[in-house]
Amino acid sequence: MVGAGHAGCEAALASARMGRKTLLLTMNLDSIALMPCNPSMGGPAKGHLIKEIDALGGEVGRNTDRTFIQIRLLNTGKGPAVQALRAQCDKQAYRLAMKFALEAQPHLDLKQATITHFLYEQGQDGRPAIRGVVTSTGWQYEAKAVVLTTGTFLNGRLVVGEKTQPGGRAGEGPSLGVADSLRAFGLEVRRFKTGTPPRIDARTIDFSKTEPQPGSRVPLYFSWDETARADVQLPGGRPNPVYPVSDEDLHGWRPQLPCYLVRTNERTHEVIRSNLHRSPLFNGLIEGIGPRYCPSIEDKVVRFAEKASHQVFLEPEGWRTGEVYVQGMNTSLPEDVQLAMLRSIPALEHVEIVRFGYAVEYDYVPPYQLMPTLQTRAVAGLFLAGQINGTSGYEEAAAQGMMAGINAALYARGEPGFVLGRHEAYIGVLIDDLVTRPLSEPYRLHTSQAEYRLLLRADSADLRLSDYAYRFGLIDEQRYARVLRKREQIEQTLGRLSKLIFTSSRSVESAAREVGIAPLGQMTSARDLLRRPETHYTQVAELARRVYQHEESADAEPPLPALSPEVAQEVELQVKYEYYVQKQQQLVRQAQRLEGLLIPESLDYQSIPHLRTEARQKLARLRPRTVGQASRIEGVTPADIAILMVYVEKLRAAAKAVS
Amino acid sequence: MVGAGHAGCEAALASARMGRKTLLLTMNLDSIALMPCNPSMGGPAKGHLIKEIDALGGEVGRNTDRTFIQIRLLNTGKGPAVQALRAQCDKQAYRLAMKFALEAQPHLDLKQATITHFLYEQGQDGRPAIRGVVTSTGWQYEAKAVVLTTGTFLNGRLVVGEKTQPGGRAGEGPSLGVADSLRAFGLEVRRFKTGTPPRIDARTIDFSKTEPQPGSRVPLYFSWDETARADVQLPGGRPNPVYPVSDEDLHGWRPQLPCYLVRTNERTHEVIRSNLHRSPLFNGLIEGIGPRYCPSIEDKVVRFAEKASHQVFLEPEGWRTGEVYVQGMNTSLPEDVQLAMLRSIPALEHVEIVRFGYAVEYDYVPPYQLMPTLQTRAVAGLFLAGQINGTSGYEEAAAQGMMAGINAALYARGEPGFVLGRHEAYIGVLIDDLVTRPLSEPYRLHTSQAEYRLLLRADSADLRLSDYAYRFGLIDEQRYARVLRKREQIEQTLGRLSKLIFTSSRSVESAAREVGIAPLGQMTSARDLLRRPETHYTQVAELARRVYQHEESADAEPPLPALSPEVAQEVELQVKYEYYVQKQQQLVRQAQRLEGLLIPESLDYQSIPHLRTEARQKLARLRPRTVGQASRIEGVTPADIAILMVYVEKLRAAAKAVS
Ligand SMILES: Cc1cc2nc3c(=O)[nH]c(=O)nc-3n(C[C@H](O)[C@H](O)[C@H](O)COP(=O)(O)OP(=O)(O)OC[C@H]3O[C@@H](n4cnc5c(N)ncnc54)[C@H](O)[C@@H]3O)c2cc1C
Ligand SMILES: Cc1cc2nc3c(=O)[nH]c(=O)nc-3n(C[C@H](O)[C@H](O)[C@H](O)COP(=O)(O)OP(=O)(O)OC[C@H]3O[C@@H](n4cnc5c(N)ncnc54)[C@H](O)[C@@H]3O)c2cc1C
Repeated sequence: MVGAGHAGCEAALASARMGRKTLLLTMNLDSIALMPCNPSMGGPAKGHLIKEIDALGGEVGRNTDRTFIQIRLLNTGKGPAVQALRAQCDKQAYRLAMKFALEAQPHLDLKQATITHFLYEQGQDGRPAIRGVVTSTGWQYEAKAVVLTTGTFLNGRLVVGEKTQPGGRAGEGPSLGVADSLRAFGLEVRRFKTGTPPRIDARTIDFSKTEPQPGSRVPLYFSWDETARADVQLPGGRPNPVYPVSDEDLHGWRPQLPCYLVRTNERTHEVIRSNLHRSPLFNGLIEGIGPRYCPSIEDKVVRFAEKASHQVFLEPEGWRTGEVYVQGMNTSLPEDVQLAMLRSIPALEHVEIVRFGYAVEYDYVPPYQLMPTLQTRAVAGLFLAGQINGTSGYEEAAAQGMMAGINAALYARGEPGFVLGRHEAYIGVLIDDLVTRPLSEPYRLHTSQAEYRLLLRADSADLRLSDYAYRFGLIDEQRYARVLRKREQIEQTLGRLSKLIFTSSRSVESAAREVGIAPLGQMTSARDLLRRPETHYTQVAELARRVYQHEESADAEPPLPALSPEVAQEVELQVKYEYYVQKQQQLVRQAQRLEGLLIPESLDYQSIPHLRTEARQKLARLRPRTVGQASRIEGVTPADIAILMVYVEKLRAAAKAVS
Repeated sequence: MVGAGHAGCEAALASARMGRKTLLLTMNLDSIALMPCNPSMGGPAKGHLIKEIDALGGEVGRNTDRTFIQIRLLNTGKGPAVQALRAQCDKQAYRLAMKFALEAQPHLDLKQATITHFLYEQGQDGRPAIRGVVTSTGWQYEAKAVVLTTGTFLNGRLVVGEKTQPGGRAGEGPSLGVADSLRAFGLEVRRFKTGTPPRIDARTIDFSKTEPQPGSRVPLYFSWDETARADVQLPGGRPNPVYPVSDEDLHGWRPQLPCYLVRTNERTHEVIRSNLHRSPLFNGLIEGIGPRYCPSIEDKVVRFAEKASHQVFLEPEGWRTGEVYVQGMNTSLPEDVQLAMLRSIPALEHVEIVRFGYAVEYDYVPPYQLMPTLQTRAVAGLFLAGQINGTSGYEEAAAQGMMAGINAALYARGEPGFVLGRHEAYIGVLIDDLVTRPLSEPYRLHTSQAEYRLLLRADSADLRLSDYAYRFGLIDEQRYARVLRKREQIEQTLGRLSKLIFTSSRSVESAAREVGIAPLGQMTSARDLLRRPETHYTQVAELARRVYQHEESADAEPPLPALSPEVAQEVELQVKYEYYVQKQQQLVRQAQRLEGLLIPESLDYQSIPHLRTEARQKLARLRPRTVGQASRIEGVTPADIAILMVYVEKLRAAAKAVS
């Protein structure tokens, strides 16, 4: 594993937990799992990824639980599919806690080293096969599989205003040599950019002019592994006294720090507009393309010229530090402009910048060159994960790292790869998007990218993915048993809900009224009752108890079991969304038929009659593994897919006839 | 202040605490106060420095108290002058806690930036006068005084075996440009080197073959400021379970981790000898000279060829990390040799190296070019402190930083500089050595360098230096009042001890026997009794109580007061060493006379008759400020000093006659 960012850490842990002797090499052991941008984890889609990684036995959720200084549930007003956890972490504590987790992992070795090129040999299938890596001091490490997770470091270049210097992140040098080695393997390498806002000194903020955003009042955690939440790893003592914090935040279920909301105004935008010619994004100094969903403030001011104000969140970077992240003010404008634009905001009139914002431009490897296992097509045994694949975001990186780690371990064992379907996990959506859709900008996952959002609720990740995790040895017996129990409980409860019938008798209606259920009106099963949007499981269970359980048998089992809030919610959602889910599952089955139709690796698209030229070219370039994948390639029409399907099925039949 | 290493942190804090608006600029905010070598603070001379810095209101002692994982008193068997505290810190916690201290300091701003050159103007005295600094992005900061504390970064070059690359420390880039700017000011710049041993994975140590070195069983702290010890800032939870640790260490007055002793053997030395031709120290790749007192293992094996074994201490780098520092194995041999030599030690047969050892070669500014205030002679307002002055060691750097910070603040206020005498503090010895003695290797402080060791006991630093600290505003009223009380208590007790006389009556002799005092034999003052080497204050006080305090007045004040252990020890030492101390003080007075004899800045040594040529040259080059300083220059004889003294006094008399 090369690189101990968010991708590399999950990759290394997964491989080692699968029992493979694993070596993690990284440029600087003091920047393991560093969060170069905001100190937060989760949010829509990203929070889902964390839950899925956690269900697969990964570390990001646990590590967030160990080190967060605030947690909230977002989108509580919206449907269950898009509700998501978001936590603010102590950046330094996060980094250290992840390092401790790596150091404690059996089969995993950790070493500080910079990789410059690869060892390889000619493989049996004609492709080069990876044999290991070589460090900048010439030391060689041999390996059956190599996972490259070098983030923004390949030929990284930092830009502030008119100045540019080589670097992977502020204060860290770039990684030279690796990109050339990849090119020598025939891989295409292109350039993207990303940026980060300034960090400011908390003492120079007028907090009375901000709106505090408190943390959750009820306990929330990312991980199903409860040991992590008991192992809080924040620096000792009180939080930095500069931050105004309510007693509720400070002395609640877990001490938390708020974030603080402010807004840009016309003056801010004026400062930016009048300095656009000095922005490296607009004057041509930066050529790489940046993420649309994490635009710089100068981008926002230009693109949404009509907006008079943008939200800006001031987020403490840790429990004791006075460094504050200015979310929403991502910029690579010159330093004097950064200061002027911040000072145009009333709460920040006297602000001092501690670290200036900057952009980084770096090489990435367009991921159409990968198989869905994240192995490169060009080099056997070479896997890529994280920002090197053109994605952006910690969680996207961690998710790929997890999958690349599992697949590298399977590859080294000579076992078939592990690919998650789009209906199984956001991880599946993410990777399928990467390997089939051309990237025109850094890729970021959104819930809208998933076709089967109701199947992919964050809370059901354990139900969806624990079988895999257990099979690979990524979660232990005990944890798996808990999932099986949960699943059984859900099944049993669903069964009982169907069988339990309420009449519309006066006594039943009166009991219903008492527990807050609207009149039944007719004979109704408990399941149908629960299907009502406003009815909750606890109410139905209580009604059942009142109707069917008699005084004298008070200690007998109730007709509907008492469930933990988590399981009750799962049952409720499964019932309420039954028909949607069934429909989605039907779509999944159809899609899976296409997915099951494997395209021979060597297929010559020139030989398929009637295929449109555009489709022919795209298919030849991206080489989808299945007809399903082919169907999601931009510019390939349903008609093209029909032609392809017929052709592939004909080939199959012919092959069968021969054998 | 440029650079937030150990020197820069103290400099910035001192200046800000003196009420000056202070800006601390450093390359990377994530490596503030990093300990690039071993994670320990203190030891002989170095521990004294920490106590002195603490007495002056500095941070290093407090910060050590916040973050140590082990503390011990060294040299308990030797005299009180050389006893010294040594603590093992959690390296990451130390760095973070220091950053928090900086962030909390009023008048102090902290910013991430790399300085490349200076702003200056022509001063009234003909020298250039500093006006500020310029960062790598061209941003300018103006300042009346600049303190440069850039450590090993100026044109730094890292070397492992046959490989070399630019860098200030492993994982960090070098600082380019600054050395050239210094040369342009006419400053001489030379080259030194230093090195660090490999760090190893605790899981690969066979601890059963090591000797654990437990921490102190009684509470020990560096700082007189007790708030720090109450603010322990280690990562939460248990220590890394890999380390064998006794219940006494773990559940004592403060949880501690032991260090572990192993030894090199003939095989180790053989591995090293047979690879010497690959050592950059011996094959000419490194030209800079390294510290004699912190030699590399290859140096040791060559220089002490007769020794069959060297001690090696395995020191955990923190409370939870598995990284272990291999003290005594400082090396820049190639990586394969590092591994082979470690594995030749039985406890390390299967060891894995996490970070390889390396050497760093860097530019320093020979400190004869400084005034005793650490201001450069060449540039008004430019101060240098720390490793840039050719010293080695965190404590030496911090001590210089403290003094440079105070002096920069005084300079900016237009006040005269602050210089500590050799009889007042080890800090005085250190700086006087630097500005008067030519360096042939990195300078490190040893207790043997002090003429007046008994005056400079670590425990008396508060008595010696608090007046200064209070006058400069570096300690508060309350803390100063404590020192005054302590001083008064000591004076009073000494007075009473002189006045209290014991006869040799039977009842007195019997009481003496009971409290463990050998027969008095004749009429004796309490003071003379306490002078006996084996007698302690508590015994004398108890004897006094028994002899002079009668039952009925049990609650009256005792004839000798009950003292805290610290004060009792001070009283005891002052009495026991009275005559030595008096003699030392007499020497100090003599020396001070020489020290008081100022040499005119413009003195033309050519015009002094009878001076030997060597002395003439050295004096002209080093330009001592006083005859005292001149007397300590190597190669200047007492005869030369006599000539100089007469000449200077004649000049003085002449000047007086004129005015
Ligand atoms: C300035 C900046 C701004 C960003 N802004 C955003 C944002 O606004 N929104 C967002 O979602 N994401 C943002 N990101 C991206 C996000 O940080 C990354 O997506 C995520 O950290 C990528 O994780 P990774 O594991 O792929 O790589 P990284 O976290 O970058 O880790 C790469 C690791 O590889 C190591 N490495 C590199 N080269 C070598 C080598 N040759 N040998 C050994 N080790 C090597 C590095 O030391 C590092 O540890 C930003 C990143 C940066 C740098
Ligand atoms: C590899 C290594 C081994 C060592 N081994 C030993 C040993 O065995 N024994 C021993 O006693 N001592 C050893 N030391 C030395 C000890 O670490 C130093 O003496 C001490 O840290 C020096 O403190 P300092 O404050 O002078 O500089 P440093 O701690 O080096 O700090 C310098 C600071 O300046 C910053 N900086 C540099 N250039 C610029 C710039 N242009 N602009 C802004 N900021 C800048 C850097 O980022 C850094 O924060 C070793 C050091 C190294 C690197």
